[in-house]
Amino acid sequence: MEIYEHKAQYYETDQMKVVHHSNYIRWFEECRIEMMERGGLGYEKMEEEGIICPVVSVNCRYETMTKFGEVVQIIPTVEKFNGIRLVISYEVREKETKELRCTGESSHCFLDEKGRPVNLRKASPGFYTMFSELAKKHFQSAENTGSIFRE
Amino acid sequence: MEIYEHKAQYYETDQMKVVHHSNYIRWFEECRIEMMERGGLGYEKMEEEGIICPVVSVNCRYETMTKFGEVVQIIPTVEKFNGIRLVISYEVREKETKELRCTGESSHCFLDEKGRPVNLRKASPGFYTMFSELAKKHFQSAENTGSIFRE
Amino acid sequence: MEIYEHKAQYYETDQMKVVHHSNYIRWFEECRIEMMERGGLGYEKMEEEGIICPVVSVNCRYETMTKFGEVVQIIPTVEKFNGIRLVISYEVREKETKELRCTGESSHCFLDEKGRPVNLRKASPGFYTMFSELAKKHFQSAENTGSIFRE
Amino acid sequence: MEIYEHKAQYYETDQMKVVHHSNYIRWFEECRIEMMERGGLGYEKMEEEGIICPVVSVNCRYETMTKFGEVVQIIPTVEKFNGIRLVISYEVREKETKELRCTGESSHCFLDEKGRPVNLRKASPGFYTMFSELAKKHFQSAENTGSIFRE
Repeated sequence: MEIYEHKAQYYETDQMKVVHHSNYIRWFEECRIEMMERGGLGYEKMEEEGIICPVVSVNCRYETMTKFGEVVQIIPTVEKFNGIRLVISYEVREKETKELRCTGESSHCFLDEKGRPVNLRKASPGFYTMFSELAKKHFQSAENTGSIFRE
Repeated sequence: MEIYEHKAQYYETDQMKVVHHSNYIRWFEECRIEMMERGGLGYEKMEEEGIICPVVSVNCRYETMTKFGEVVQIIPTVEKFNGIRLVISYEVREKETKELRCTGESSHCFLDEKGRPVNLRKASPGFYTMFSELAKKHFQSAENTGSIFRE
Repeated sequence: MEIYEHKAQYYETDQMKVVHHSNYIRWFEECRIEMMERGGLGYEKMEEEGIICPVVSVNCRYETMTKFGEVVQIIPTVEKFNGIRLVISYEVREKETKELRCTGESSHCFLDEKGRPVNLRKASPGFYTMFSELAKKHFQSAENTGSIFRE
Repeated sequence: MEIYEHKAQYYETDQMKVVHHSNYIRWFEECRIEMMERGGLGYEKMEEEGIICPVVSVNCRYETMTKFGEVVQIIPTVEKFNGIRLVISYEVREKETKELRCTGESSHCFLDEKGRPVNLRKASPGFYTMFSELAKKHFQSAENTGSIFRE
């Protein structure tokens, strides 16, 4: 399985001559959406079912800085999922050196079109199964190699 | 009447140590939306009426570069409006020195919820009148001081 | 003292029809930079002294969503400062209703031009004094009204 | 030769439920930088040589809208190059249907570290040769299939 990769763009840099810290939050989203797509159900299908999955909280610890042109590899892991709440962690490393760029976490809920919280188990069995599988991969593996992005 | 102002943010800079050129396109939008609000009808009201006003084309000629922390003043002018097509020009100057940063232009149409072009004269007389007034101000003034943002 | 305000822009929304969550991280930066400016020493002066102040970690808990055109008020508080590490918290509320949009925190260090950590007490007494004053305001006030942005 | 591709991200959409128009200007940059890299000399090498290549003007004509998750293909063509001025055009199409999303153009100059215009022929023969080759490909081909991104 391929690892998710993002190439740092010029427009993502700031005058510190590195990628602006807010972009990592966007890269987490890119990676999360790709994880769903590879898991079999893209995020656009969730919205088509009338469910949105907003970010409830996000955090990021920056270890080293990413330069323009560098490629980073991002590994997402479903840390928690119970149908109501979803927690995903992210590890961002530079492709060549594998140097850690940052780690972070995003927490999500699921809302219907009226903005009411829903339990995916009832509201969307397909997505419920997919996230459960992704979470299982994580916990099955004592070596923590369960991410669908890991080889 | 106040001139529209925007302060250049750190996250808008790139590693050239000036504001990234794509942000001016966003500033044009900020200014255009503020012009509508000051004209009496905010853009959100247009969307509430089921009409959107997408950008059909945009251009920008960059004269000098904007640094982090500088305040720019933007003057929008309604160059053309016939109910079907709207053309707005923009002049961006640094606040203190009045040095020209860039000039640009955006062209717009009006679409209903099904994506079909509409004539504002029928589809929304309120907005039709507002844009007509803004355009008139421009043409009434041989000295070209017709923008509602000019004093 | 004025509260820091930001108007939610159209280009900051996403197809969930609210402001994209990554933008709050950028608003924290806007507010932080404004706090420094009002404190007497703008961030550009720090860079002129050869010191940068990167973000070491950031987090945000989203409570409610911000719509296009809404104005939010942001209150920053210097939670910790010892010359080496700076921690600022943020409270974002919608201007009219005062509804809480989100709370967050950013943690920072100080680096010289070679990327080595510095203690502001030695490296820049001016900034050291300013941040100390901002932190003192916070702790002096049992009612937690110490932010320079609070009235 | 592969065509340059970009996948439309969620954070690139706005509440019109399509990609915000300013992002195409950023995609032009992505594509331009990739073109240089494939041509043998990445943009970071130019900056290492003390030369920057700012955008002097840009324009974009939007034909159809890009939705979240769609992949667009971008074809850049070096329209003009004389060592002092560089003009590149872009054609953006949706990958599956080949539907035209937009066309645009960016114009560039070259500046040294003091901000003075330079002629690449003298200032950087390597880059001069590369851009000349890219321009030649365009003019050699009456069928206009000269872009290095075309098969």
